[in-house]
Amino acid sequence: LYVILVYDINVARVGKILKISRKYLNWVQNSVLEGELTEASFRAMKAEMMKVIVQDEDSLLFYVLGNQRYLERKLYGVKKGGEEWIL
Amino acid sequence: LYVILVYDINVARVGKILKISRKYLNWVQNSVLEGELTEASFRAMKAEMMKVIVQDEDSLLFYVLGNQRYLERKLYGVKKGGEEWIL
Repeated sequence: LYVILVYDINVARVGKILKISRKYLNWVQNSVLEGELTEASFRAMKAEMMKVIVQDEDSLLFYVLGNQRYLERKLYGVKKGGEEWIL
Repeated sequence: LYVILVYDINVARVGKILKISRKYLNWVQNSVLEGELTEASFRAMKAEMMKVIVQDEDSLLFYVLGNQRYLERKLYGVKKGGEEWIL
C-alpha cells in the first residue's frame, strides 16, 4: 500500500503521533508523512496511534493507494521534508 | 485531475492561500484541501498562488491523480472538513 498521512493532533499528543508515524513513514512536510506499507504494518501503525489520539479532538486522515504509479507530486516553494523523491 | 493540496504557509499569507484554494478545492482538514480540477483550473489556481507565496518560506505540495478511482480515504478521530465523502 502507498499511504499518505495528514494529521491534526492536539499539541499535547502530537509528539507521540509523530514518533509513531516516523517509525513507519517518511516525513514530508509539517503534519504530512507518506510511504510504502504492507497491510500488516498499516494495521500495526494505526493500532499504536489509536491508543494515543483523543477521538473528539484529534484527526488522522490517511489517503491509501494500491501503489504510487499514478500519483504525481508537485512541490512549490520550500522543500520541508527530507525525502529523496523531491530532490 | 484529482488534486490534494497540503500547504505550509507563513501565517502572514495563509489567509490569502486558503481563500484562493477554496475557490477551486474543498476544505478537508487543517492545511488540506482536495477536489476535481481540469488542467486549466489547476494551472489557474497555481498561477494565483505563485503570486502570493514566498519561495523560501512557504510550501505548497500537490498530490495529483488522474482520477480518484484508486484513492481510498480513512479518517480516524474528529472530522474537521465539511465534505460529504467523509460522512
